[in-house]
Parts: sequence; C-alpha cells; structure tokens
Amino acid sequence: MNAPETRTITLHPSGNPIGKPDTPYLLNTWYAAALSTEVPTEGMMQRTLLDTSVLLYRKADGTAVALHDRCPHRFVPLSMGRREGDDVVCRYHALRFDCTGTCTHNPHGNGHIPAAARVRSYPLLERHGLLWIWMGEMPADPSKLPDFGPLDDGPATGLAHTYMPMKAHYELIIDNVMDLSHVDHVHGEIITTRGQLSPLIPPVKEENDTVNVRWEWSQTPAMLIFANFLPDPAQGARHFLDVTWFAPATIRLMVGAVQDGTSPLDLAHTVGQYDVHTCTPASEGHTHYWFATRRNHVVDDAGFNAMKIQAMHGAFVNEDGPIIEAVQREMNTPDFFALNPVLISSDVAPVRVRRLLRRMIDAERRWA
Amino acid sequence: MNAPETRTITLHPSGNPIGKPDTPYLLNTWYAAALSTEVPTEGMMQRTLLDTSVLLYRKADGTAVALHDRCPHRFVPLSMGRREGDDVVCRYHALRFDCTGTCTHNPHGNGHIPAAARVRSYPLLERHGLLWIWMGEMPADPSKLPDFGPLDDGPATGLAHTYMPMKAHYELIIDNVMDLSHVDHVHGEIITTRGQLSPLIPPVKEENDTVNVRWEWSQTPAMLIFANFLPDPAQGARHFLDVTWFAPATIRLMVGAVQDGTSPLDLAHTVGQYDVHTCTPASEGHTHYWFATRRNHVVDDAGFNAMKIQAMHGAFVNEDGPIIEAVQREMNTPDFFALNPVLISSDVAPVRVRRLLRRMIDAERRWA
Amino acid sequence: MNAPETRTITLHPSGNPIGKPDTPYLLNTWYAAALSTEVPTEGMMQRTLLDTSVLLYRKADGTAVALHDRCPHRFVPLSMGRREGDDVVCRYHALRFDCTGTCTHNPHGNGHIPAAARVRSYPLLERHGLLWIWMGEMPADPSKLPDFGPLDDGPATGLAHTYMPMKAHYELIIDNVMDLSHVDHVHGEIITTRGQLSPLIPPVKEENDTVNVRWEWSQTPAMLIFANFLPDPAQGARHFLDVTWFAPATIRLMVGAVQDGTSPLDLAHTVGQYDVHTCTPASEGHTHYWFATRRNHVVDDAGFNAMKIQAMHGAFVNEDGPIIEAVQREMNTPDFFALNPVLISSDVAPVRVRRLLRRMIDAERRWA
Repeated sequence: MNAPETRTITLHPSGNPIGKPDTPYLLNTWYAAALSTEVPTEGMMQRTLLDTSVLLYRKADGTAVALHDRCPHRFVPLSMGRREGDDVVCRYHALRFDCTGTCTHNPHGNGHIPAAARVRSYPLLERHGLLWIWMGEMPADPSKLPDFGPLDDGPATGLAHTYMPMKAHYELIIDNVMDLSHVDHVHGEIITTRGQLSPLIPPVKEENDTVNVRWEWSQTPAMLIFANFLPDPAQGARHFLDVTWFAPATIRLMVGAVQDGTSPLDLAHTVGQYDVHTCTPASEGHTHYWFATRRNHVVDDAGFNAMKIQAMHGAFVNEDGPIIEAVQREMNTPDFFALNPVLISSDVAPVRVRRLLRRMIDAERRWA
Repeated sequence: MNAPETRTITLHPSGNPIGKPDTPYLLNTWYAAALSTEVPTEGMMQRTLLDTSVLLYRKADGTAVALHDRCPHRFVPLSMGRREGDDVVCRYHALRFDCTGTCTHNPHGNGHIPAAARVRSYPLLERHGLLWIWMGEMPADPSKLPDFGPLDDGPATGLAHTYMPMKAHYELIIDNVMDLSHVDHVHGEIITTRGQLSPLIPPVKEENDTVNVRWEWSQTPAMLIFANFLPDPAQGARHFLDVTWFAPATIRLMVGAVQDGTSPLDLAHTVGQYDVHTCTPASEGHTHYWFATRRNHVVDDAGFNAMKIQAMHGAFVNEDGPIIEAVQREMNTPDFFALNPVLISSDVAPVRVRRLLRRMIDAERRWA
Repeated sequence: MNAPETRTITLHPSGNPIGKPDTPYLLNTWYAAALSTEVPTEGMMQRTLLDTSVLLYRKADGTAVALHDRCPHRFVPLSMGRREGDDVVCRYHALRFDCTGTCTHNPHGNGHIPAAARVRSYPLLERHGLLWIWMGEMPADPSKLPDFGPLDDGPATGLAHTYMPMKAHYELIIDNVMDLSHVDHVHGEIITTRGQLSPLIPPVKEENDTVNVRWEWSQTPAMLIFANFLPDPAQGARHFLDVTWFAPATIRLMVGAVQDGTSPLDLAHTVGQYDVHTCTPASEGHTHYWFATRRNHVVDDAGFNAMKIQAMHGAFVNEDGPIIEAVQREMNTPDFFALNPVLISSDVAPVRVRRLLRRMIDAERRWA
C-alpha cells in the first residue's frame, strides 16, 4: 500500500488568490510580466497576471519590484498611490510598504504596524529584455528560466521586442505557434512557403518539459523575409523552422534559409532569425503576448529593425489575432478537447504541448 | 403497465449543441433564417439561430446553403474563410468543405481526411421571400411549413418584407401580435381603432397546432391605412382582424375594412392586407423578427409600397419594440408564468399560444 | 427548552422581490429615495432601490408617491406610461393605477379588474429635503427616521444638497465617512488637518442602533473651510468632528473650529457645519449617495452656498469616489471580512458599524 507523498508548502499570509487548488495555471514557474522598457524608472505600472493584480516599479538603483497590487488594509490598488523613495504609499490611508511588501509606516493612532500588514512580493528576473515573475508558493528557481542567450548576442539594431494583449486563452496562441502549417493560409506573400510546408509531417520531440517540432523544405524563391539577403534572390533555397516550447508558455523559434546544398540547417549557416514568443494569462480569456526577434543579417540598420518588428507585429495583429480571438468566442470554454476537435497531422506538436502542460498542472495540484 | 414508447434518433456527430435535452426551443420545425435578399449570391453571411452560429450562402446555381459556422478542426467560424466554387475554405488551415458539410480537401501531411471532419448542414426551404431552416435531429419535413401562398400572389410592388433584430425573448413578440388590443394604446393615428377593439372579447380557436383569434368591429372613420381606398374615406366601415399562430413562431395576420353592410369579412371582399410575422430566437434574450405584407390595393405603386413597409417597420421599432425590450429587461427571465402575471380577457390568445408551445416543446423533449 | 418566537408577516401579493429571505439589505427601515427636488411636479421618474425598480411622482397636491415600477399584467415599467391626474396609465394596454397601486380602469373586454391587479406602493416621508422610502413588509414606522432637524433650521442659502451615483457597495461609502482618518491623505489643502487627525485614537460609542465616533484636536492654521470665518485666520484653532451612523446607511456629521480655549466643542460655539450623508443600495455593487450640508456661517450668500456644495461634491467625486470604486473592483465581493482585512486603530468605528448592521440584518432575517 502506497502512502501518499507529502510536502509542506508555506502559504503566504497575504490572502493572495494565487495557489488556490482550483487555479487553472502552472504556478511554480516563470512567466513574462513585462518588457523591460514597459516598467518606468519612476512611477508605477499595474498589470493583471494569472488573475492577480500586480504592481511593477523600479527602485532608484533600477532593480524591478513586483508586489500584489492590493493594500492589505482596505484593498485599494497600491498603483493608485505614490512612490516614496523605493517604497509605495497607499492612496487611501497612507500605509507605506517597502519593496519586500513589509509595511514600514502607519500614520494612524500610535503607529503600531500589525504583523499581518504585509503585501505579497513576487520574485523577478530581468533577462533578454523582459521581466519574468514567479507567482508560485515554492521558492523561485532561476535555473527554471530557459536560456535565450542568442537574443542578447549582437547589436541593439538586430533585436526588437513587441507586446500585444489578446482576448483569447493563452493555449490558443501556443497552438498557433506550435503548428506553423497555417502560414501559407493565414499570412501573405512575405512569409509564404508557397505550399511547401503543409504537406510535411514534421518530427516532434518531447523531452525535459519541452516539445520540439522541426520542418525542413526547399522553395523557389526563398521566403521573402530572407530572399534579398541570399546570393540569388530569385533562386530556390533550403529552409528550416525549429520550434521549441518551454513550459508553461514560452516558445523559441529559429528559422532560416540557405542556397548552397550542403550547409547544416541552423542559424550559424543560414540567413535567419531567432525569436522568442511568450504568453502570460491575464485571466482565462485574456492573454499578454510578447515576442522578441534577433536577426543574423542587416543587423546594424535601425530603420530595417523598426520595419521588421512592425511587420511581425502587424502580421499577428491583423492575421493570426482575429482568427484566434474568433476561436475563443466560438469555443467559449478553455477546454479544447471537450469540444471534440477533429485533429490532423499538423496538430501533433500543439496537442503534445497541451497534454504535457496538463500533466504538469495536474502534478502541481497534487503537491499543493 | 405501459412500457414507455421509444424512438431512435441518430445524433449528428458534429458536436453541434442543438438537440441537447435542455435546449429551450422547439427543434423539429421550420424557423426563418433570413430574407431571400439577405443571403448574397456571392460571399457568405453568418447568423446566430437557436444559440448556434449558422453560415448561409448560395451556390452558383442560386440554391441556398446552411452550415454550422464552425470548422470541426479548430473551431474557426467558416464565415471568416473564403468561397471556392460551391465550397467553403477555412481561414486558418484551409480545410475545404462542400455544401453538404463534407470535408473535400486537407492540404496538410498526406492529405488524409478524418471521417469526423464534417460540418453539420441544415435543410433549407426558400419560400415566400424567406429562407426557412430545419435545425432538429429528425428528418426535415417540408409539409410542416405552413402555406403562405397569398404572399406570392400579385405584383412585386404589392409585397414588402422587413427585418428587425430585437433584444427580447421571442415569445414576448408573439404575445404582442396575438393580443392586438394594444393597438389603440401603443400606436398612433394610422392604425387606431378609436377604442373599438379593446372592449371586444374575441373568439379564440385552437386546432392542429395553431391558435386563431378574430376581431370584427365597426369604426368611423375606417382605420387610416384603409380609409382612403374605401368609397367614402370619412364614413364608417366594418373591419376584421384574423390572426393565426403557427408553431413555433410564425403568425399570419389578415386585416381589412369594407363599407357595405353585407360583404363577408375576408380579404376577397375588403380593402385589406395579408401579413406574415415570424420570429427566430438567436438566443434566449435576442430574437430575429421579420414580417412580410401583401396588399390587395394600390398594388402597382412602388413608392407607396416602400412607404407602407417603412411605416410598418417604424411602428414596430419606435412603438412596440421599446415596450417589448423594456419588458424583457424587467422580467429578466424567460419564464413568464413564474412572475405571476395578472391576466385579463385580451390575454386569452397569447396564453393559449404559450401553453400549446410549451406542450409541444415538452413532448419533443420526451422523445429526445 | 425555548420555543422559537414567532411573528406573522403578511406578504404583499405583488410578487415584488423585496422581502425574500436572501435579500441582503435591512428592509424594515427608511432609505433615501430621492432629493425632494429630483421628483418633478409633473411627469414621473424611475430609480432602482434595493434591486427593485421604483416609480416616483407627485400628485397634484404635491404629495410624493412611490410605486413598484412594473405593471402586474405584462411587466412593463409604469414609468414608460403617462400620468392621468394622480393616476398612472400603462404604456402597453392602458391599465390605470391610482397612487395606492389599485387598478382603477381596464379598457379591455368587459372592463373587469382582477383582484390581483395591484401594484405595490411604498410609504414615503418627505423630510429634510429628501424623500425617504420604506420597503419592508412590516408597517412603516415614521419614528424610525432619525431627526435631522438642524438641516431645516436657517435660510435656504445656508443649506445645500447633492446626489452622486456610485459603482460601489454602500458599506464601502459608510466606511469612508466613519473613518475620517483618510482626510489628510486623500483630500487636498481645503480640509486637511495637517496630520493632526490620524494619530488620534478617537472614542467610539455604540448605543440604540447608532455608532458615534468623535475627534478633537488643534491645528494651525484651522481647516481652511473654517479659517477665514474665525477671528484670526492664520492662528491655530481647536476642532471637533462628531460622526454618528444611524442604521442602515445614514450618517450625521458635525464639524467645527473655534479659537478661544474654553468654548464647548459643539456647533453652538464653533464655526462649523452640520451634514447628513445617506446611501441607498441600487444593487449590491451600485449605490445612490446623497449628502446635505447646513452651515452656521455666511448663511445668506447664495454664491458661497453654491461654491460650498460644488467643492464638497467635487472632493467626493474626484478624490474619495475613485478610491472607493477601485476597492469595489478589487474586492469583487460584498464580504469585506472574508478577505481578511488588516485592521488598524482607525477602523474601530466602521467595523462597529459593519458588525451592528450585520446583526440587525440577521435578526430581521430570522423574523421573516
């Protein structure tokens, strides 16, 4: 007879809803909270992450801070208040909290500060141009954030980031990136594979809480995002697309083209780009979506860089986005499988991701 | 001891919500889906009927098609996609469906089409300037659509149709037409009976899933919609109003006036009109409402025809509509009787309709 | 063994939702329904009070009337109808009701009026510039309305009223007034106590279904709303603030300043004002909020009077209001204590009010 394994988790006294048994999200993990550039050096910003209102600001030394955006006294959003040095003062009764969430001043009565007068603070990592937040109850583990080092490698004019709020469940956005067979049907001339991609049944690998899918194909001419940077823009090229999901909601996408017949299909040998897409649920039907792109060509041209990210942003907002949001409205439930989808060959990778993420969330619930 | 009767119903594999035991609508019947003129000869339109998103379009030969507006793969509305001949191609992954809902092309992998890749199609009838849809599980029965032949009889300039979306339960609209005692109180000079209608206790007949109510009265002058077409517009006239409800939500209304004392009160002997009102629930609190009107006077005047339907449309939108929508907000439930209405003599016909419709829906539920 | 006490309550036959066991409000009490000036001498107005739509109008003799704003026949808001003398005629089928809610005319059929054709009427009191409504099932008891006689005492130019709809639970507004320690933090220069108020731990008294809290302090200069009317505006003054809550949702607030060292701190001896704040829930998350203010200085200046009420209205709408509405959104529940608030010394009075009100509502539920 097996005794159930047990583990002790210290619940935070803040009354924060995160960590409730019915929370639908993976919690002991890193989620993007904001672009580094979104959090100002003065002032404060509010963002709802995992159904929780979070206050983001920077200390005088530039370090970013994340606190539950709710005064524990009368539940006023702290983001309505004001900064006092590295502390935050509540708008209503002027309780003051430091960047760890400890109440440091109570102007009322004899100034006594109740022990419970604490705001939950959330560990942050600032990496690859993004702030990553840990909202689970277990100790934050920096080693759990995947290394997207290539994003950092090269001049600023070869790297760009963007942010898009979406009225859709985050898994619908992950589905979209994990199954790129849609590019010929959804997108225009710029990133078409001229029908080469859809017929492929790409290999899918699952290991260490990641799912990888890879396409390799030839087309003439090359994808237009690369053709002009190849020796002969009008000729055919070999291409690859290598897409890896990291739990819970981050995807690394490498894509490139080359015109010789022997080079390995990787970013070192092709004209290509290294992208990171990441999603954080605001709530069940609303998602924050960011992506970052690093090119290995035209890396010193700020104008080209601006055009590049604008085009990527536009393709998503004008082409993928409306479809995904329509699916959200039509499904009207987060439970994809309950609607009995008819699955086809290109669904292998996104379905693997959905099932692995479900197992991880279920496992976390059993611990909690 | 009676064994319960049983019947086998083949449920459609599309996952379509229609036909669930808790569906509040009568299903094995014809509902209006659109005016013939609403469905274009090219392109597609979407309309929510009975809580279900329906795609409507016409084949090259003009035949109208109704499909569940949801790709069975990833639940994208097919109405976001494009036509390819008589087929429809999904916007997301380009699965193609013919007008029967059969998937005819899958551009992915080896092109295999799963047997389940089907969209539910709905039988349509095109009659009397309307498209009628059958959304139940039993075989569509054209004989169940009542014959409104008189609508078709005469020149185009003697017939007009209109469409009005309403934020109200469809039974509130039926109540409105089945109890015309409101005309003196709600409407203006044009269709007033000068108080003659309300005091009457009209006979109500129920037979063969229809409910009929009939008023006959005299007034001076005649209703203004007819007075100018009678021998002496200033004199009195005998009138009749004959209203018949056909389950679930269609009403035939005949009304006319005559100045001699002996003619039978019917459309053959009076200056009058033959109207059909029909409602289709979009959802519990939203209804599509159409009506058609055929006159037996001034039948060749296109300008008069346009003015006539505009006046009828305006009377409903500006006079009945706001009352019915206010009742919907005040009731905040579809269950009229649960609110203990105080019924008066003029409620006999609408209450008969409500009770008969309820029995029909309950009977259908027992079969399902 | 104690037998439970019993009491017989005659439920009103109108089907009105007020008085259901799960109603969250204290019912057998007076609530403000409108400013006297809000209810016109002709026409009608509608206002939702305690989740019930109420029709307010005045008879020819000026007496105000409150009826359930719902025709018992087909549930049309009577406020859509028209006045006929002191009666109201329904917009839909012209049933007529007098100011007691009795149906006095039915134009349909033989004119029979069913006994159930009654609209619930609500007792009103018109006092202190407000109409007060009794929505409970027990007989209205005028002695239960507290006496705010000082409001009526003095010239019209020394008294002003205002009305503000709020998207917040009414208890959040009561909290705001019962804990005035926020004034130094929320409001600007006009009513600041320059930090003198917050450190005080004011005495709180609970008696006869009221809760009183009182602050006394000195500051230099005096509160700016009073300083210019004191002998030496630049000098210090002794102040008092005396706040009394009357169940369920009315607060009397007396505040004044004096520069001599011996006068009693009351309105007879200080430059001050007598205010009444009162709230009526429209629904759980929406509240009608009124206040009235009577000064004992500059009482004959209509321009000053207008400026005074505009400043008070503005302070609430621009300063308190946004905080309270943000708390409402953040709490997303009416159950304050369920969120484990961290209470501090200044919460004593509002917490006493919340607990006493809860006991009164629970007691009423046991009777019902």
